[in-house]
Amino acid sequence: MKKFHLTAGPSELYFTVEQHIQQALKENVAVISHRSGAFQEIFSFTVKQVKEMLGVPEDYHVVFTGSATEVWERLAQDCIAQKSAHFVNGSFSERFHAFAEAWGHQTQKIEKPLGEGFSEEDFKIDVDVDLISITQNETSTGVQFPVEDIYKIREENPEALITVDAVSSIPYLEIDFTKIDSLYFSVQKGMGCPAGLGVWIFNEKCVDRAKTLKAEGRLMGGYHDMFTLLKNASKNMTPATPNAIAIYTLGKVCEDMIRREMKIIRSESDYKSSLLYAAVGAHKDLDYAVKEERVRSKTVIVIEVKEGRDAKDLMAYLSVQGLEVSTGYGPKKATQVRIANFPTISKEVYFRLVDLIEAW
Amino acid sequence: MKKFHLTAGPSELYFTVEQHIQQALKENVAVISHRSGAFQEIFSFTVKQVKEMLGVPEDYHVVFTGSATEVWERLAQDCIAQKSAHFVNGSFSERFHAFAEAWGHQTQKIEKPLGEGFSEEDFKIDVDVDLISITQNETSTGVQFPVEDIYKIREENPEALITVDAVSSIPYLEIDFTKIDSLYFSVQKGMGCPAGLGVWIFNEKCVDRAKTLKAEGRLMGGYHDMFTLLKNASKNMTPATPNAIAIYTLGKVCEDMIRREMKIIRSESDYKSSLLYAAVGAHKDLDYAVKEERVRSKTVIVIEVKEGRDAKDLMAYLSVQGLEVSTGYGPKKATQVRIANFPTISKEVYFRLVDLIEAW
Repeated sequence: MKKFHLTAGPSELYFTVEQHIQQALKENVAVISHRSGAFQEIFSFTVKQVKEMLGVPEDYHVVFTGSATEVWERLAQDCIAQKSAHFVNGSFSERFHAFAEAWGHQTQKIEKPLGEGFSEEDFKIDVDVDLISITQNETSTGVQFPVEDIYKIREENPEALITVDAVSSIPYLEIDFTKIDSLYFSVQKGMGCPAGLGVWIFNEKCVDRAKTLKAEGRLMGGYHDMFTLLKNASKNMTPATPNAIAIYTLGKVCEDMIRREMKIIRSESDYKSSLLYAAVGAHKDLDYAVKEERVRSKTVIVIEVKEGRDAKDLMAYLSVQGLEVSTGYGPKKATQVRIANFPTISKEVYFRLVDLIEAW
Repeated sequence: MKKFHLTAGPSELYFTVEQHIQQALKENVAVISHRSGAFQEIFSFTVKQVKEMLGVPEDYHVVFTGSATEVWERLAQDCIAQKSAHFVNGSFSERFHAFAEAWGHQTQKIEKPLGEGFSEEDFKIDVDVDLISITQNETSTGVQFPVEDIYKIREENPEALITVDAVSSIPYLEIDFTKIDSLYFSVQKGMGCPAGLGVWIFNEKCVDRAKTLKAEGRLMGGYHDMFTLLKNASKNMTPATPNAIAIYTLGKVCEDMIRREMKIIRSESDYKSSLLYAAVGAHKDLDYAVKEERVRSKTVIVIEVKEGRDAKDLMAYLSVQGLEVSTGYGPKKATQVRIANFPTISKEVYFRLVDLIEAW
């Protein structure tokens, strides 16, 4: 039986990925030099597609890293002058906070219990904060940070850099880049590409911060710092020999999605999430893990299994039917399941999922 | 016409790579969770194959990074207490030296002009050096560091950590790991795998160094530090979602090479390099870029084109015949060509190469 991975990441590959990898092998993409014109064309094509797909302004930079995890390190290294503020309500937002501390920065931690989002009274940023980290979609809990709230934070903090973790919400997320300074994601979630590539988008204000730190002699480390990334990107290149097949595949998948139309991809995601949430709400043994609707994720749907029934049992029941989902994260492992709602998963699979959940 | 990439990196894929990638896609390797048993099996298989292929002692650790470039950063971060010594005779040995300086370490630089190797009188390491970096094969110049010389340095410096850059000599290189503390390579050179994966092998002495630095509060940064890598590797896992197809493919290629027999792979490399060097020595317009035979690389063969003839012309002539080679590196770009002699390139291709060079 064909298995469908509705796991929170990595998830199902986008349906065109396999043929793009075949084509990449045929075109010798893994073999050409990363200092050659042929590679520069691939790099520049992928950057162009990413920008078009997400509506990134022309003057924002796009660079590639090994993972989104690596971007935390770059931000901590290049973009925090003094103190960073972190909205923490799950494992991933906490982990960037830990990176900032490991780099010796002061931090302000604005924390909520797992499953809760932030509201306007939480938006009190200390005056000496110069970078604000927002996890737009907490993959561990299925809580989202509405973009309107990000814009409010921007208005109240015009100076600090705002950086957005969009690991599990791209390409669904529609955001006005002019109201943020940096955004990053991995390709193995909503883009449905094999893991091993992170995408970091940032503006000149971030570069200026890094320049200041460099001028003050405070930048440390030589691996993929912002200047090495930018110097190479300006030539459509990467600092070290890259995973060229991954960059090629990402560009092609972006092109496929643009062709399909982003608004269709987004409305399908809305539709699928509505179906599943409706089934959860109507089920006597299930509940929303995220109670407040406003902050309930559209891309990672987390279900609470009520006492008396077993989350493991639900997972096993779906698995027998060919649908793999994720356990709850950390302390919620035993009582929750997490289900990806990425563009890689068709409506038909969601119909099947919802039927099965209703019958459970 | 089929093109053969005899470039210094990335080079031709190993002939089994394409089928391994197909199989990985079929087995959903890119989709399974990196916290699952299925991934743990792949990780543990690949580590076992790497160890068997290279004769790595059981008690040495094997971890995966994004590239060999990343390993420089880990070494600078985790393994230098005070001062590092660097044998520098090309771009890559120089770059690790630059990383160590960027991390604020003191360094001793033992430098030779491009194309020259080191001899016993160069082995004078300062008493306060606690890490010694040796580039076993300088990809930029085709100069090798004989293993006997490494062993001599070990004898004279029993305390300092010795780390070996074997980026362009694995799997040809045969080395006694008990006489070094750390070795690293990328998979896109001699292993003939797609780029995007580094392999770092190290012993407990390196771990002890990192522990000391940590205890002194001197370790900075949270991305892939040695403890995060080790903690995950002990469970056959990686810190972040990995390029699982690359780890899978590397394990399978190691298995293929072991089946073929490493001594056959090595003797074929010797044979091919002898053929090519003989043709160079006999050609009136060509010369060895590395004059001293003892330090002439077997895996990256660099040819000097004498005045009156043009290196670019040689490259174009070979390219028309389907053989792609690399330019000289940096200042040698106009007068040298570099030709990989990796196991991914067959004897038949080398026969053709040598015939063409003789006729040039």
